[in-house]
Amino acid sequence: IQAGDGEDLRDLVADLHEADVGSLLEALQPDDRPRLISLLGKNFDFTALTEVDDTVREEILEELSNDEVAEGVRDLDVDDAVYILEDLDHSDQAEILEKLPALERIALQRGLDYPEDSAGRRMQTDCIAVPPFWSVRQTVDYIRDTPDLPDTFYEVFIVDPAHRLLGAVPLDKLMRARWGDRIDSIATEDHQRVHATDDQENVALLMQRYNLVSVPVVDDSERLVGVMMVDDIVDVLDEEADEDLKALGGVKADEELSDSVWYTVKGRFPWLFANLLTALISASVIDTFEASIQAMVALAVLMPIVASMGGNAGTQTMTVTVRAIATRQLGRANAWRVIRREMTVGLMNGLGFALLLGTMAALWSGVPGLGVIIGLALMIVLTAAAVGGILIPLALHRLKIDPAVSSGPFVTTVTDVIGFFSFLGIATLWLSRS
Amino acid sequence: IQAGDGEDLRDLVADLHEADVGSLLEALQPDDRPRLISLLGKNFDFTALTEVDDTVREEILEELSNDEVAEGVRDLDVDDAVYILEDLDHSDQAEILEKLPALERIALQRGLDYPEDSAGRRMQTDCIAVPPFWSVRQTVDYIRDTPDLPDTFYEVFIVDPAHRLLGAVPLDKLMRARWGDRIDSIATEDHQRVHATDDQENVALLMQRYNLVSVPVVDDSERLVGVMMVDDIVDVLDEEADEDLKALGGVKADEELSDSVWYTVKGRFPWLFANLLTALISASVIDTFEASIQAMVALAVLMPIVASMGGNAGTQTMTVTVRAIATRQLGRANAWRVIRREMTVGLMNGLGFALLLGTMAALWSGVPGLGVIIGLALMIVLTAAAVGGILIPLALHRLKIDPAVSSGPFVTTVTDVIGFFSFLGIATLWLSRS
Repeated sequence: IQAGDGEDLRDLVADLHEADVGSLLEALQPDDRPRLISLLGKNFDFTALTEVDDTVREEILEELSNDEVAEGVRDLDVDDAVYILEDLDHSDQAEILEKLPALERIALQRGLDYPEDSAGRRMQTDCIAVPPFWSVRQTVDYIRDTPDLPDTFYEVFIVDPAHRLLGAVPLDKLMRARWGDRIDSIATEDHQRVHATDDQENVALLMQRYNLVSVPVVDDSERLVGVMMVDDIVDVLDEEADEDLKALGGVKADEELSDSVWYTVKGRFPWLFANLLTALISASVIDTFEASIQAMVALAVLMPIVASMGGNAGTQTMTVTVRAIATRQLGRANAWRVIRREMTVGLMNGLGFALLLGTMAALWSGVPGLGVIIGLALMIVLTAAAVGGILIPLALHRLKIDPAVSSGPFVTTVTDVIGFFSFLGIATLWLSRS
Repeated sequence: IQAGDGEDLRDLVADLHEADVGSLLEALQPDDRPRLISLLGKNFDFTALTEVDDTVREEILEELSNDEVAEGVRDLDVDDAVYILEDLDHSDQAEILEKLPALERIALQRGLDYPEDSAGRRMQTDCIAVPPFWSVRQTVDYIRDTPDLPDTFYEVFIVDPAHRLLGAVPLDKLMRARWGDRIDSIATEDHQRVHATDDQENVALLMQRYNLVSVPVVDDSERLVGVMMVDDIVDVLDEEADEDLKALGGVKADEELSDSVWYTVKGRFPWLFANLLTALISASVIDTFEASIQAMVALAVLMPIVASMGGNAGTQTMTVTVRAIATRQLGRANAWRVIRREMTVGLMNGLGFALLLGTMAALWSGVPGLGVIIGLALMIVLTAAAVGGILIPLALHRLKIDPAVSSGPFVTTVTDVIGFFSFLGIATLWLSRS
């Protein structure tokens, strides 16, 4: 198809949903993507670009001329247009904006002026606002007779003459109200609202909590400036969970399957480097006990077990803590209770594995003392892992550092160092006595 | 408050949103939770129970009498009632169902008969369905005049006389259509639909992909049986991401902050036990090289570095792979390309760290040979980590085992064993030659 060009393509793509066009683009070879878009010309719906990986979008936008992009974003909802333009560099952004009609340019510029990841960047700026004294009939007539309304809407907002938000009426309620009622008499009281500068993650959690499909966005003077829709929120929540998961696994949040090898190597190197430093610290701990290892090589055989049990127990606690912080379930109110719980869990698991592994080590080596040593070391390291696994993310969070990204190396360092130190240290004491 | 009881509580809770009542319940001491509900009596909205952790809900339901529960779920939407009842044991379920009026009992029973985690369990069964030959005016009048409609709806469905789904009309479109138009003339063509037995995760991904706020659910004969709403889908997506994240961290998917210590210990023990077996395998690999370690204790100091670099690189690749499988971005079509990419990334990072750590080891130990040995071992283990990190989750997925839960121990075993074996093996060869 790519070689032949022409009409057929247009027919083929015309019936597809934008999400499917997005998948089609991702499946193509990188060179073919901008070619497809140029070939489709006016028939290509730029909304499809909001559905592809960031890397793919950036590559495509680089290949397309600024004229083509300006033409393409022109017909989009403001939120989609902002989403496409926000990753471009400033000179390209400015050039594209200049090619747009004044009204759209201003709307886009305002969207781009909000801070990154704020509600203002993601909101739809078209929304239906009516004065409080209108009747239900007037409102319905207005909706029916105004041609230039947003594509999709679930609520009608009530505003005062200064465009300050007074309330909201969901469509289904509007439909069932009596024609003669004043619109403000059926408005939802205490309606949730968010500010344009609010972080999109907080907006998403709010909408999830109260099961909202849309929420009005207001500026600092409480004036209605837009509306956040649930479909954008679903993507935000998904993105946040994705970021945390990747961060915990030591991968950059924006790593995607379509990234180049070089980009991936650069992204993963820092984490492995942090881990190397951690490992060097552990190695230097081991180094101080060289004499004991020389005296009893069995210590070298068993010491990775202690460290790996500690590392895994620490990761368990850290995972739960990071997730609880991200979903706002862990705060000052319950921190102490959770810390105590984790310590108890660590101690109990430590006791269990101390008995288990202690017995095994004693039987394997034929030295009962070695069983006692490894048992003691395991109890210490599993308790330390529990404490470190919860205190480190909590401390990072309080220092405004994302605990999902940074906890891992710290927790591993703590469990490794404490693991090697307690095991080899106790062994050395024991060796020196006997 | 809890001691005094009475009227005040009712006033206090009456104005709260169900999500806030849920948080309130979670913040209370376990004993006080059912007491609060009993005190509130009819004023307690059982919807709040859908907003609390599973453990908290189960504890509360155990304390409440079946009469109280039956009374409480009676006024709920079917999906919320099913959500509350599904975790109870069968005898309690049956007893509660018997206390309900026939109509509600049948609706609930049908919901509970669908498989766990299916769309049928989560859907709302109330929905608005009209025949295709109605006019827009007739449809609007019907919505306005029928008192017993669902609380919230975003679409009107069109069905034939056998209740088979023909199409759907979003409310905003309905509002803007001309009164005289036939309702089927404004219906969305090719509307997405799902089956009641479909897995809720697939439904969620479909709704996310096509940005839907609601999607009709049909049975095997394509008859409309309910509707999935976006707010439920948000929870499903969140739950799935949560499960994957916890699984990768070695924690049971349903572990929550409110779990008891004993439940948490039992939940985490199996993972640590799996890790112990892994560690024992590594230890036995080390054990075979005891003589070499005895001859050169520096090997014992450096070997944990090799293993930990391998483990971390393996986790990176595994995290990306597990996430890509979960979001359906990795399939047969691109598996080969991704495997090749991961191998190249592994090899390049291997080369980089081999040079880095090799130089450091040679300088530290004063034995240049040791630098070459650790460099070679690092390259082998980082490439093996990349291959294992992607092939193990893919293989588990093909065997229908959840890769998020089970990949970890396998990947660690592979990287540890290959790490220790290659480092100590190469060292032994070198020692025997010199």
